[in-house]
Amino acid sequence: MQPDSLEQLRQRLAEFAARRDWNQFHSPKNLAMALIAEAAELVEHFQWLTQEQSRDLAEHQRREVGLELADVLIFLIRAADQLDIDLIRAANEKIDINEGRYPADKVRGEARRAADYDD
Amino acid sequence: MQPDSLEQLRQRLAEFAARRDWNQFHSPKNLAMALIAEAAELVEHFQWLTQEQSRDLAEHQRREVGLELADVLIFLIRAADQLDIDLIRAANEKIDINEGRYPADKVRGEARRAADYDD
Amino acid sequence: MQPDSLEQLRQRLAEFAARRDWNQFHSPKNLAMALIAEAAELVEHFQWLTQEQSRDLAEHQRREVGLELADVLIFLIRAADQLDIDLIRAANEKIDINEGRYPADKVRGEARRAADYDD
Amino acid sequence: MQPDSLEQLRQRLAEFAARRDWNQFHSPKNLAMALIAEAAELVEHFQWLTQEQSRDLAEHQRREVGLELADVLIFLIRAADQLDIDLIRAANEKIDINEGRYPADKVRGEARRAADYDD
Repeated sequence: MQPDSLEQLRQRLAEFAARRDWNQFHSPKNLAMALIAEAAELVEHFQWLTQEQSRDLAEHQRREVGLELADVLIFLIRAADQLDIDLIRAANEKIDINEGRYPADKVRGEARRAADYDD
Repeated sequence: MQPDSLEQLRQRLAEFAARRDWNQFHSPKNLAMALIAEAAELVEHFQWLTQEQSRDLAEHQRREVGLELADVLIFLIRAADQLDIDLIRAANEKIDINEGRYPADKVRGEARRAADYDD
Repeated sequence: MQPDSLEQLRQRLAEFAARRDWNQFHSPKNLAMALIAEAAELVEHFQWLTQEQSRDLAEHQRREVGLELADVLIFLIRAADQLDIDLIRAANEKIDINEGRYPADKVRGEARRAADYDD
Repeated sequence: MQPDSLEQLRQRLAEFAARRDWNQFHSPKNLAMALIAEAAELVEHFQWLTQEQSRDLAEHQRREVGLELADVLIFLIRAADQLDIDLIRAANEKIDINEGRYPADKVRGEARRAADYDD
C-alpha cells in the first residue's frame, strides 16, 4: 500500500534534519518562529495587491507563492512531528468543531471574526 | 483506492466554504492574513516558554497546540486550493531546492539564517 | 524640559516589567514572538474586510484596533530597550535609506514589492 | 517648542507617502499586512538563537535588528495615522489596563499567557 503523501513528507523532512544534525535547533518554540516567518513571506506577496489581483497571479508569481506555501507546510510538518501530533486527525477534529461553531444556516454569506460569534 | 488524506481535507474544506457562501471572502490575500493570524496563535503558546519547556508540553497544552497547527493547515489548504497549487508537489520541489542549498556536509550542526548562505 | 513621549513610555514599561520581575522572560527572542503575536491580532481585525471597509471602521472597532496598535508599540519599545536601540534614530535612518531606494520620480503610484526594486 | 519625536516621524512618513502617491495602497488592511511582514523579519533574526544569544548580538546583527524594529515602527505610525489614532495615548491606556489585569503582587515572576489570567 502506498503511504500517505503527508506521511512521506514527514519522513523526508525528518531525514533532512537528522542528516544535518538540526533537531537540536528544531524545538517547537523555534519551529513556530520559522513557520510564522514563512507565513509572512506569503503575506508579503499580497500586501499591496487588491483581492482581485491576488486571485489572478501571473504564472511566475503563482510559482513563487507555491514555494512559500511549501515552506509553511514544511515547518508545520516538522512542528507536528516534534510534538507527536497527527496533523490530519487534528484538522478533521478542528473542522468538526467549526461545523458546530458556524452552522451554515446561521453564518451564510457573513464572515465576521470568529470571536464575534463567541459572544 | 483510498484518496490521499490531504486531498480529502481539501474537499471537505471546499464544501465547508461553499455551503456557507464564503468563497467570496476567501481571496488568496485574505487567506494569507487568516493563515498568519493562526500561526501567531501557535507562537503565542510558546512565547514565554524556554525551548526545553516547548518540547515538553502538558497534555492539555499539546492538544491546544494541535488545534492551532490544524488551523494553519486549514488555511494553507484553502489558499493552495484557491490558487490551484499542489501542496505536496510544491513541498517536494522546495525540499529538492533545500537539498542543493544546504549540503549536509557543509551545514551540519549549524543553523544560521538561510540568508547567510546566499552571500 | 518635557521628556519625549516615547522615552516616557520606555521608562513606564521598564518599571512595569521590573516590578513584576519579568525581565527574565523579556529576552529579545521572546519579545519578538510577543510582538508578532500582537501584530497578528491587528491583522485579524482586517482579514475579512475589504480595503474600503478597513478605512472606515465603526468607532468601537477603531478603539479596539487602537489597543492592538498599542500592544505592538509596547513590545517594540521593550525589544528596543533590551537591545539598547534608539527607535527614533533607527526609524530616521531607515527612512533615509528608503529615500534613496525609492526615488519619488521613479516609483510614483507604484507599490511593487521592495524586493522587485533590488533586481 | 520642539515637536515630539513620534509626531515628527509621523509627518515625515506622511510626506514620504504623499510624494510617491502611495496613500492609495496604504489602507489599514494593507498596512497591517506590511507591519506583520516586517515583524516577521525581526523574528527571523532570532529563530535559531537561544534566548541568551538573542541578548548578546554581535554589533552588525544589532544594527540589522535595529532597522527591522524601525520598519515595524514605520508601518505602525502609518497605520495609526490612517486611522487617526494617537499611538502614545493608546499605549498609555493599554498600560493602564495591564496594570489592573496583572497586579504586581499576583503575577511576580510568572509569565503565563495573558489568556490564562482571564479564566
